[in-house]
Amino acid sequence: MIPRYSRPEMVSIWSQETKFRIWFEIEAHACDALAELGVIPKEAAKTIWGKGGAATFDAERIDEIERETKHDVIAFLTHLAEFVGPDSRFIHQGMTSSDVLDTCFSVQLARASDLLLADIDALLAALKKRAFEHKDTVTIGRSHGIHAEPTTFGVKLAQAYAEFERCRERLVHARAEIATCAISGAVGTFANIDPRVEEHVAEKLGLKPEPVSTQVIPRDRHAMFFATLGVIASCIERLATEIRHLQRTEVLEAEEYFSPGQKGSSAMPHKRNPVLTENLTGLARLVRGMAVPAMENVPLWHERDISHSSVERMIGPDATVTLDFALARLTGVIEKLVVYPDNMLANMNKFRGLIHSQRVLLALTQAGVSREDSYRLVQRNAMKVWEQGADFLEELLADKDVRAVISDEALREKFDLGYHTKHVDTIFRRVFGEA
Amino acid sequence: MIPRYSRPEMVSIWSQETKFRIWFEIEAHACDALAELGVIPKEAAKTIWGKGGAATFDAERIDEIERETKHDVIAFLTHLAEFVGPDSRFIHQGMTSSDVLDTCFSVQLARASDLLLADIDALLAALKKRAFEHKDTVTIGRSHGIHAEPTTFGVKLAQAYAEFERCRERLVHARAEIATCAISGAVGTFANIDPRVEEHVAEKLGLKPEPVSTQVIPRDRHAMFFATLGVIASCIERLATEIRHLQRTEVLEAEEYFSPGQKGSSAMPHKRNPVLTENLTGLARLVRGMAVPAMENVPLWHERDISHSSVERMIGPDATVTLDFALARLTGVIEKLVVYPDNMLANMNKFRGLIHSQRVLLALTQAGVSREDSYRLVQRNAMKVWEQGADFLEELLADKDVRAVISDEALREKFDLGYHTKHVDTIFRRVFGEA
Amino acid sequence: MIPRYSRPEMVSIWSQETKFRIWFEIEAHACDALAELGVIPKEAAKTIWGKGGAATFDAERIDEIERETKHDVIAFLTHLAEFVGPDSRFIHQGMTSSDVLDTCFSVQLARASDLLLADIDALLAALKKRAFEHKDTVTIGRSHGIHAEPTTFGVKLAQAYAEFERCRERLVHARAEIATCAISGAVGTFANIDPRVEEHVAEKLGLKPEPVSTQVIPRDRHAMFFATLGVIASCIERLATEIRHLQRTEVLEAEEYFSPGQKGSSAMPHKRNPVLTENLTGLARLVRGMAVPAMENVPLWHERDISHSSVERMIGPDATVTLDFALARLTGVIEKLVVYPDNMLANMNKFRGLIHSQRVLLALTQAGVSREDSYRLVQRNAMKVWEQGADFLEELLADKDVRAVISDEALREKFDLGYHTKHVDTIFRRVFGEA
Amino acid sequence: MIPRYSRPEMVSIWSQETKFRIWFEIEAHACDALAELGVIPKEAAKTIWGKGGAATFDAERIDEIERETKHDVIAFLTHLAEFVGPDSRFIHQGMTSSDVLDTCFSVQLARASDLLLADIDALLAALKKRAFEHKDTVTIGRSHGIHAEPTTFGVKLAQAYAEFERCRERLVHARAEIATCAISGAVGTFANIDPRVEEHVAEKLGLKPEPVSTQVIPRDRHAMFFATLGVIASCIERLATEIRHLQRTEVLEAEEYFSPGQKGSSAMPHKRNPVLTENLTGLARLVRGMAVPAMENVPLWHERDISHSSVERMIGPDATVTLDFALARLTGVIEKLVVYPDNMLANMNKFRGLIHSQRVLLALTQAGVSREDSYRLVQRNAMKVWEQGADFLEELLADKDVRAVISDEALREKFDLGYHTKHVDTIFRRVFGEA
Repeated sequence: MIPRYSRPEMVSIWSQETKFRIWFEIEAHACDALAELGVIPKEAAKTIWGKGGAATFDAERIDEIERETKHDVIAFLTHLAEFVGPDSRFIHQGMTSSDVLDTCFSVQLARASDLLLADIDALLAALKKRAFEHKDTVTIGRSHGIHAEPTTFGVKLAQAYAEFERCRERLVHARAEIATCAISGAVGTFANIDPRVEEHVAEKLGLKPEPVSTQVIPRDRHAMFFATLGVIASCIERLATEIRHLQRTEVLEAEEYFSPGQKGSSAMPHKRNPVLTENLTGLARLVRGMAVPAMENVPLWHERDISHSSVERMIGPDATVTLDFALARLTGVIEKLVVYPDNMLANMNKFRGLIHSQRVLLALTQAGVSREDSYRLVQRNAMKVWEQGADFLEELLADKDVRAVISDEALREKFDLGYHTKHVDTIFRRVFGEA
Repeated sequence: MIPRYSRPEMVSIWSQETKFRIWFEIEAHACDALAELGVIPKEAAKTIWGKGGAATFDAERIDEIERETKHDVIAFLTHLAEFVGPDSRFIHQGMTSSDVLDTCFSVQLARASDLLLADIDALLAALKKRAFEHKDTVTIGRSHGIHAEPTTFGVKLAQAYAEFERCRERLVHARAEIATCAISGAVGTFANIDPRVEEHVAEKLGLKPEPVSTQVIPRDRHAMFFATLGVIASCIERLATEIRHLQRTEVLEAEEYFSPGQKGSSAMPHKRNPVLTENLTGLARLVRGMAVPAMENVPLWHERDISHSSVERMIGPDATVTLDFALARLTGVIEKLVVYPDNMLANMNKFRGLIHSQRVLLALTQAGVSREDSYRLVQRNAMKVWEQGADFLEELLADKDVRAVISDEALREKFDLGYHTKHVDTIFRRVFGEA
Repeated sequence: MIPRYSRPEMVSIWSQETKFRIWFEIEAHACDALAELGVIPKEAAKTIWGKGGAATFDAERIDEIERETKHDVIAFLTHLAEFVGPDSRFIHQGMTSSDVLDTCFSVQLARASDLLLADIDALLAALKKRAFEHKDTVTIGRSHGIHAEPTTFGVKLAQAYAEFERCRERLVHARAEIATCAISGAVGTFANIDPRVEEHVAEKLGLKPEPVSTQVIPRDRHAMFFATLGVIASCIERLATEIRHLQRTEVLEAEEYFSPGQKGSSAMPHKRNPVLTENLTGLARLVRGMAVPAMENVPLWHERDISHSSVERMIGPDATVTLDFALARLTGVIEKLVVYPDNMLANMNKFRGLIHSQRVLLALTQAGVSREDSYRLVQRNAMKVWEQGADFLEELLADKDVRAVISDEALREKFDLGYHTKHVDTIFRRVFGEA
Repeated sequence: MIPRYSRPEMVSIWSQETKFRIWFEIEAHACDALAELGVIPKEAAKTIWGKGGAATFDAERIDEIERETKHDVIAFLTHLAEFVGPDSRFIHQGMTSSDVLDTCFSVQLARASDLLLADIDALLAALKKRAFEHKDTVTIGRSHGIHAEPTTFGVKLAQAYAEFERCRERLVHARAEIATCAISGAVGTFANIDPRVEEHVAEKLGLKPEPVSTQVIPRDRHAMFFATLGVIASCIERLATEIRHLQRTEVLEAEEYFSPGQKGSSAMPHKRNPVLTENLTGLARLVRGMAVPAMENVPLWHERDISHSSVERMIGPDATVTLDFALARLTGVIEKLVVYPDNMLANMNKFRGLIHSQRVLLALTQAGVSREDSYRLVQRNAMKVWEQGADFLEELLADKDVRAVISDEALREKFDLGYHTKHVDTIFRRVFGEA
């Protein structure tokens, strides 16, 4: 997590202040439930909410205590007792540190998910707007980096929209995976604490009770969460890569917005580099790289070991902060993307009609020529275009084997762009529910 | 995919025979739809189903053709034409190779998912059976590999059950991700083929039409699929690791079934090694390692490049075959696991009552001793047990500061195992819906 | 390891036949040493070499025995005894299975390394040949996919050469890592076997004795080996990506060789797709993905567990066979690469002189204009080229602020391509030792 | 990089202050070379060293400029000019930003490597000291977590020593990989700068000139560097895992040092958890996870793209800071490790002589019994020990088939521990060069 690739709202979820506040709330909600069950005095729970709720926790003081006790939750409870006074002995009754730590982590990841969902919504809105704007902007579709057949720029963006809509759904699932609460004591048996305390705390925090925890919430949940972020990051890389390709000097069909004061290079003032999308490509590698450590966290020893902790201290903030930044950056890129429809057309015509070869092939087949022969007829004319710069339509019109089976008019019709875009509305309807 | 770690049913999904059969079905279903739309003669579609359906495709012959054409689908179609005759010219009309390849891959992954779901069901059944069998088999819970508090062996298995039930649900989602069909032509615009053909083929194959494909089905779907397999593999590793720990010489609370003829080691005949679960640990690493290449497959260039293909030719079979084998092996291990309840009890008593310290601590606090003082009282007696081999209960009964606040009877009650297992039914009800 | 991406020589290293032959040689060499030390009769060692050396081991028979004993080395020894007769009791004295398995794996990896080194040598030869052929073929250098300044195609290949020369050196190190021999008995203490046996076997097999093994050769060696293959694979991806870019329709500065019979697409006969380099991109992902499982193999439990075995059964063959295939394929691509120098020049001139902006900037600075002012002068003319299609040199010649500080002749000199290639010989001398 | 797992010296390598200081030195050294070549006035170079050397760079001011120019090196140069005055126009002549950025990164990684090498040296010293201390401390060797044959605790540590000595050598190679300097201008052609400038700067900074750079130093170097850190991290995990196993309640052969004030758990005061080595296990996952993004950085587009930058901004500091912390922590763990030789002996005797079965097996074979028969004889007695708690030696002495071929005295001799440790000196000599 480095400032350059961070946004404040997501960063604040991972601050010490937020963490201690959540810890307090977990403890205080638990006290409410314990009081309700008659385990501790109701008055104590009230005092704890009152004095603890009004307290400003001092991270440095807590660190100081932790340096002696080497235990962060004990350090926090000791500090909390400084505010609450004698009633503090009723706090954390029958609980274990992980009850606090793991439930807090769930709250933080759930909140992070909510921000990420909002990020995706913003990206989807931008993609939809630009997709409709360019629904009919014809551009060449490319397979293997080679011209294939025409499509529209709107369809490219519709594809991205559908992809991020899937990401949204995945993230909803991922959020549900980690939004659980464990208040189950030393090895998860509820020996020292009633399961109803967990149910109460879960409800208050918007979580579900973990069906069976073993001091810790099982880490397969978190593995699934971070793996999902890795997939989303990979989708970001796909769209970023598309834009990088379109901005290449020889292609120049679209360009990241270039603000007036911006300098592309200290040496070559004419350069406008797709630095935002290149940056997104790198950020995607980072987020993706965190999926494997998260999966390695799953096989903890017996009821738990603490090896997952250092991993999560890093990837918890890093993955969510980086992905939040990346999604927002990508949204900005899409919103302001400069599109060059004229260049799209110019590029499409680079090979003088060759992109229509598939239609000609089909026409020949339908005219009764065998598939193999049709292929050879198309290929011999195509090669003249490719190698000698000829015009494909003219070559075909001059090929008597072709003319023997297909009329000039029919041939010309095969070079109509509208043919390729006739189902764009269908695609848009499938993706957006409207066209 | 190596024979040692493969099962025939899953392997057969990935055979050349299966692949060509699915290819044929995709083409033939497409012909039906094309005939229905009047694009090709209905009679031709019938002939194709008839002659193609009766054909036995010759993988070697297809390879031979491919060596010349360097294109697998063309090689197949050429071979298919040898069976179908002149009507073969109506096959593959307006389609592109990827329509066949990608839809076939979807069918294979969906079938593989079905086997894996059945594998998980078998594992769940085994876990449930053994969990109920050992619902009340008391054993020590361990955090950090160190004795913590009692739990039951059934709870351990219930945890695994809940984990694999989540895996099941994840796999259902993952299956839905990849169960789509694309018959959309060169760059996915349906220029040469009516979208209704895709809808027909999808329905016949039990797939959903891909809302927007770009010659290929977008690879974020497959990334999510393989990432999910990686998470499931990690869960396998967790349970395997648990058993490996339990089978350690010093622990020996459970053991993989050891068949009469089996030799554990060429040198040490007494050894019974947890080789199955160690093997599962390795297999988990393999499956997990395939998630990252699958994610790297997402950012294909423009409408498609073919870099994903070699990756999928390997991880498609390897990940599913390995995971199928691993799940089945794990099921066998669980079903036949030899459990030693006596050793569980003996281990639990190793430190003469120390595991009850938490309860004593709580009792002191509830008797009005401050948290800090309670902690010190428990700690000073615990250290005598740890360092001098004393009995914890006896030490406490002899500690006059302790006795000043808590009666002998109350102290003894703190050493009752039933205290720890009183909520096992609750946990079982949460996990299994019954107890 | 799938046939499509495999070459027979590398595949044969991993065959059952090769493995059993190496096992036999390890056992027989050990017998020689044991005989020399007087532990077993010299005559027995002779018999073992004679009868075992003449034997043809039957993999199916060994599998059959293994199915009963569930132990592969015992199965082999049982089969070997069928050839050797009573003297077979002197085989494997004081050894443990891993002595055979691990040393065999070392031999296989060392042989695989030798093939890979030869592959790299062939690639280096191809790169050098083409680099010198195109030493002076001017082409535009691109940063961020955007035209920067001229370089030569030879320099691009020289860079690749230097990169693979580093790979060669890395592989030499990696080979040394894994070329060790362990014949040290049950937990590596040589309790039952003299260390001189290990020294003898090591020498005969071209390996070094493992300084301290613990039944197994430590897996950090293999992790380093497979991580190195991952880096080499990534270098393959870099060069493959360069070619994919150069073959793009809009760029077309180089092209994979396209054989006469080859069909690029079933639908678009004009297409020549960079399918070989796209394939290499995918293969790189596969090999890279095997580095992490290899690293996860390092922390075996205590003296050893067998979790590494299943991982290595797969990645041993897969990583080496795939990398061997990829290196050979890349060598073929480079050898036959079709280069289009005319297109390189045409692309370079796309922006009418803009690529010389850096030289103009420098000239202005040297003429006494401040860096900031120079930048602004260059930028305002460059933007006219970019936005209005003007010619950069003509614009500069017409800018009176520019002419005030720099002569026309001096300006024209800044547009000389030779300026950019004057140090190519220096670079070649650094890379190849000659120019 | 989080404070909890960071040490100040390594952190300071990655501070803004350090970075700007290195940037300045690169620029100033380049000015010296340019002055020597007569490109800029010698007096200017002197002024630059004088005024720039005395300057305190203001990171906030530089950030402020960067926010306008969106270019970090230009921002720095602008700030530097505020100190240097008019002569600042001679700075950065013919250079490109990457010349500064990449060379600086090399300096930082080289310095980080030096700290890591020192860390490894400290770890090696600790391992050697403890290895000699426990050279003869007999302990059971375990394969598969199951008792195998005796070894010594010193041999375990010697193994770790040999492993980290290999890590040291790997790191020396990795350091050499990244210790290169590039001052080669826009696309690495030296068009605007003499190669002798690069040679001068390289020499002054203790680097080697990059044979052929392309604006950037090729990223295969960095991939190899971070992959090496991943392997070292995995070795840390191996030793950490060993200690975690030894500290298990049932094993307790060694223990992390437990300081008097430390609390192991808020709930169970008797617990002493191996939290340091568990933490190291997690840190290893993190460092290992950074190898793949580093490999993905290799295939930059053409002469360069900037996608590597965001990855390196994170993993550069994170991997080195985390590994530095982990090595230091591991050294502390080893130095203070509490070893329990009595427990080692007690554990070894758990199965009443069974660990000597291999010797008995060998003795039988040498006495002329066939391998198969010997195996059966040993096995039938071993099973009585395993299943009925008998004593292995006594059982053998009572087995008349055994006694028929081997004397009582000879049998007893097979149970001598000294037999297993007789080659420990050999192993130590191999590893440490002394015993």
